[in-house]
Amino acid sequence: MARWNSLTKPPGSLGRLEELVLQLALAQGTERPQVARRSMVVFCGDHGVTEEGVSAFPKAVTGQMVANFLAGGAAINVLCKQARMETLIVDCGVDGELVAGTVDRRLGRGTANFVNGPAMSAEQVERALENGAGLARGLACDVAGVGEMGIGNTTAASALFCAYCGIGPEEAVGAGTGLDEAGIRRKAEVVGRGLARHAGVSDAVGILGAFGGFEMATMTGFLLGAAERGMPVVVDGFIASAVALAAGAIDARVMPYLVFSHVSAERPHRRLLEKLGVWPVLDLDLRLGEGSGAALAMPVLEAAVALYEGMATFGEAGVG
Amino acid sequence: MARWNSLTKPPGSLGRLEELVLQLALAQGTERPQVARRSMVVFCGDHGVTEEGVSAFPKAVTGQMVANFLAGGAAINVLCKQARMETLIVDCGVDGELVAGTVDRRLGRGTANFVNGPAMSAEQVERALENGAGLARGLACDVAGVGEMGIGNTTAASALFCAYCGIGPEEAVGAGTGLDEAGIRRKAEVVGRGLARHAGVSDAVGILGAFGGFEMATMTGFLLGAAERGMPVVVDGFIASAVALAAGAIDARVMPYLVFSHVSAERPHRRLLEKLGVWPVLDLDLRLGEGSGAALAMPVLEAAVALYEGMATFGEAGVG
Repeated sequence: MARWNSLTKPPGSLGRLEELVLQLALAQGTERPQVARRSMVVFCGDHGVTEEGVSAFPKAVTGQMVANFLAGGAAINVLCKQARMETLIVDCGVDGELVAGTVDRRLGRGTANFVNGPAMSAEQVERALENGAGLARGLACDVAGVGEMGIGNTTAASALFCAYCGIGPEEAVGAGTGLDEAGIRRKAEVVGRGLARHAGVSDAVGILGAFGGFEMATMTGFLLGAAERGMPVVVDGFIASAVALAAGAIDARVMPYLVFSHVSAERPHRRLLEKLGVWPVLDLDLRLGEGSGAALAMPVLEAAVALYEGMATFGEAGVG
Repeated sequence: MARWNSLTKPPGSLGRLEELVLQLALAQGTERPQVARRSMVVFCGDHGVTEEGVSAFPKAVTGQMVANFLAGGAAINVLCKQARMETLIVDCGVDGELVAGTVDRRLGRGTANFVNGPAMSAEQVERALENGAGLARGLACDVAGVGEMGIGNTTAASALFCAYCGIGPEEAVGAGTGLDEAGIRRKAEVVGRGLARHAGVSDAVGILGAFGGFEMATMTGFLLGAAERGMPVVVDGFIASAVALAAGAIDARVMPYLVFSHVSAERPHRRLLEKLGVWPVLDLDLRLGEGSGAALAMPVLEAAVALYEGMATFGEAGVG
């Protein structure tokens, strides 16, 4: 990346942008990284743990929001249009009818309640990982963003955070879509019961199957598949970061391929990012999911690459 | 802003983006703020204090970079193209020939060295403020960005920070374009000498004239003029924030019109933003100036307004 220091600016003065281009270059295995072709993949699925009353919204909202994605009325549609990104909505197991236009990778009508047993069977986890890797292999793009939709999935993400990092439930849960303090305490208690139920599970894939959602396991496979083909992925918020934790636990080599787009307002997210040892691009107090933070970070990546490609060198400009 | 809560997302989940739209709406005096027409104004000028050896780059670089701006090879050109912003380069007093294509608002060939006397005469400050306000009045845009170029102007900004906020020089200086620790100490000592020289000056305009640059005083006038006509302005890094301090000291009513784009890597910048009581949009470790951070924040503003305008309501989408 000697080129950065030849451009008409004080060395290092583009800070994080210089690092991002370096990361993209290493991920893509080239000195001239590309971000022109970009896709947002939104993984959707329902969660059995919603029957414990852990969300401010009813489970039916997952399917309704999938329909909203296809109709183009959701935040992620607006943001992907702004960022000129193709949007792919993947139904990984929503409890409802398949919405026309979604990519069908359904593994069931929502997961099982992890308080009573594993959220997924071993076979379902395996298929989810394969589905995700297949999607990553098939995508014609330079860089992907990943987001999710699934009522109940901050609870699953908190459980994964606890199980992978040895954090206590009280420190791992947040308000999700809008719980009050009593709701957050109940959510922590539910996560605690799940952790007790699956205390014997210690392998990375087993933990994912114990607590994760179909959308989370499929996204895990996507991250692993993307790393394998050298495609950097922009990771959204708390849930996608918990998925990155799962992917990293399965294969640590995935980490350099992941750009963490933002630190969200979901309370445990900052700590999760610290555990991952990463520095998010944005801090905008978002807590929406869908890939919204990843889409908002895309113009920053685009600008970084454009600067690297488009600025004059000291020699060209006669400066210095 | 009741509309935000009618859109298909948990209330408040777009965090900072919701606040930004509210700020733009209040600034523009409308419920439907616009950001379609946007301009970047880069104020350029030279500083007499450079003769104290306070910069890693020679003074001649100011004029060379102005030529680079006009040739389109600088970071700000690339970023404004990305953000689809018109770029206006204003020569407020560069020590060199006027470059064709710049807006001529020259007040001299650089300011005087503030260690020996006021950087500007009272008449020059007055003219700079008028020039800036006139530029703000004449600009056909919904939102402007402001940046600057001027070798030596982090020293002037540090001095203004000290004088307006009662901060000691050691806490107010940073590396600028790339000083080492010895250089930073020398810079603090120079700022200290300036402060001692102008200890008797206490009015807001007088302080600006004692230490500021022509580009900084003109930008101050621009901020005041923009507020007067209800045009929000996206403020760049450390130097532009010091200018915001000057503008706020002259007329506190300017503050709600200013969006602070980023916290830079220039050491005192975070503290300056805290003094202003503002939360920057981005934190990317930039330390370039030119308006680079303001241009990078523009897509965030654009996305915020697009979400506000383009998302479906719960009723339209049948969600909830």
